[in-house]
Amino acid sequence: MERIERHACAGGVQEVWRHRSGVLGCDMRFAVYLPPQAALGECPVLYWLSGLTCTEQNFITKAGAQRHAAEHGLILVAPDTSPRGEGVADDAGYDLGQGAGFYVNATQAPWAAHYRMYDYVVDELPALVDAHFPTTTARGISGHSMGGHGALVVALRNPGRYRSVSAFSPIVAPALVPWGQKAFMAYLGEDAAAWAEWDATRLVAGAKERLPLLVDQGEADEFLDGQLQPSRLQAACEAAGHPLELRLQPGYDHSYYFIASFIGDHVAHHASALKE
Amino acid sequence: MERIERHACAGGVQEVWRHRSGVLGCDMRFAVYLPPQAALGECPVLYWLSGLTCTEQNFITKAGAQRHAAEHGLILVAPDTSPRGEGVADDAGYDLGQGAGFYVNATQAPWAAHYRMYDYVVDELPALVDAHFPTTTARGISGHSMGGHGALVVALRNPGRYRSVSAFSPIVAPALVPWGQKAFMAYLGEDAAAWAEWDATRLVAGAKERLPLLVDQGEADEFLDGQLQPSRLQAACEAAGHPLELRLQPGYDHSYYFIASFIGDHVAHHASALKE
Repeated sequence: MERIERHACAGGVQEVWRHRSGVLGCDMRFAVYLPPQAALGECPVLYWLSGLTCTEQNFITKAGAQRHAAEHGLILVAPDTSPRGEGVADDAGYDLGQGAGFYVNATQAPWAAHYRMYDYVVDELPALVDAHFPTTTARGISGHSMGGHGALVVALRNPGRYRSVSAFSPIVAPALVPWGQKAFMAYLGEDAAAWAEWDATRLVAGAKERLPLLVDQGEADEFLDGQLQPSRLQAACEAAGHPLELRLQPGYDHSYYFIASFIGDHVAHHASALKE
Repeated sequence: MERIERHACAGGVQEVWRHRSGVLGCDMRFAVYLPPQAALGECPVLYWLSGLTCTEQNFITKAGAQRHAAEHGLILVAPDTSPRGEGVADDAGYDLGQGAGFYVNATQAPWAAHYRMYDYVVDELPALVDAHFPTTTARGISGHSMGGHGALVVALRNPGRYRSVSAFSPIVAPALVPWGQKAFMAYLGEDAAAWAEWDATRLVAGAKERLPLLVDQGEADEFLDGQLQPSRLQAACEAAGHPLELRLQPGYDHSYYFIASFIGDHVAHHASALKE
């Protein structure tokens, strides 16, 4: 594992690391922010999953999360959004292939060889992070858009593993919207039954843990009606009795300006759960 | 003048505008952040001048300044760093030509035709901003690296026009370092006497107004010794009795992580002067 960036930031250090991923079969990069408290002892970790087209860079350069993490003493970890490299399958579309892993384990050719972002995010990356950085066992997870979908799915499928979960503008029902349908058809194949285990609106019904969901959604989001449809998550949570705080934010769009505006609330939400 | 971006941000609105610049003879873009207070009345304006290779985008996407501007009720205006376009002279180097206007009025061919960023920043842009947005007459100016040089020079040359000035990692003595020498030779010609009026360390001696300078400089900045040399500004201010607060920040580099870490202090510094 090799450190390729290091910048002092908000009293702590923003780093980027490169490592060989056995799960994904390629070199991967991830970003880690170490708050000032990490120089003195162990800190909880908040994982951030980014959206379509992003790398590990977007969140760390645009969200302004570091100052909040420094305030609360949280480590932030932001992986890339897919396997990468010449030998890794890709697609000309921005919403499939590299930059668009959708945090699933692909079962279909040519994707199955490398596209196992779920296993990477749930198992390999946390093991690596815990081995190299001063972490406690307390973990939270959040993300944006495709990464909001990822955060919800990862938390719902792993009761006990995360103490907190939140999302910005998540794709809550990928099986029912174009982005998700395109990706799931490619990665998971035509059997829609296989899609249900990667769909937050389907997973809340069977969730073994009632981890409260915090979701922020801009009402001026250009993808609100076509791809995001948070009312589907609201309906599923009401039906299942699953706690959800869905905040519709008037005027806000799908950009990082939206994330930067409310990331402080999310970091505080996670800190409250992670430091209990 | 045409608005080409609009995003809700931190309770206000981040916009980007395109307009025809008569001074520069080309289309230009600038960013303007309107805090929530601007919907109710007039607000002071803090101008931000960016560094080499930047456009109007870098500051608004990476610095996280909007939340501080919203807190204090300041409008933020961030122009591009040079004239742009096919008919505008350019150079293969990142530190000359488009993206590297150095906030001077060029006198030499082929640059003199368009490179008048000083006049643009001092006159044309504020007139445009004041005509289109709810501004008071109170103005501050800040910037980074080449833009820190620009902010210091613009403020020192225009007593009474700005109520506050600050800089991150500024090129304080361009006439004495490679970045500045290359640019000044091209834009201003070989006569070093013409360079003095664009050099903050030379201007403080004759400054008619003792506007306090706030300067933050990272001690791990990769350009500290070769290009920035803040001790030269310190010496010039001491000799002239000009008030300077030079803060050397251990561990910080030249990146936007540094700016994001201390922009809150700078916005508060300007707000204190602008709202008197």
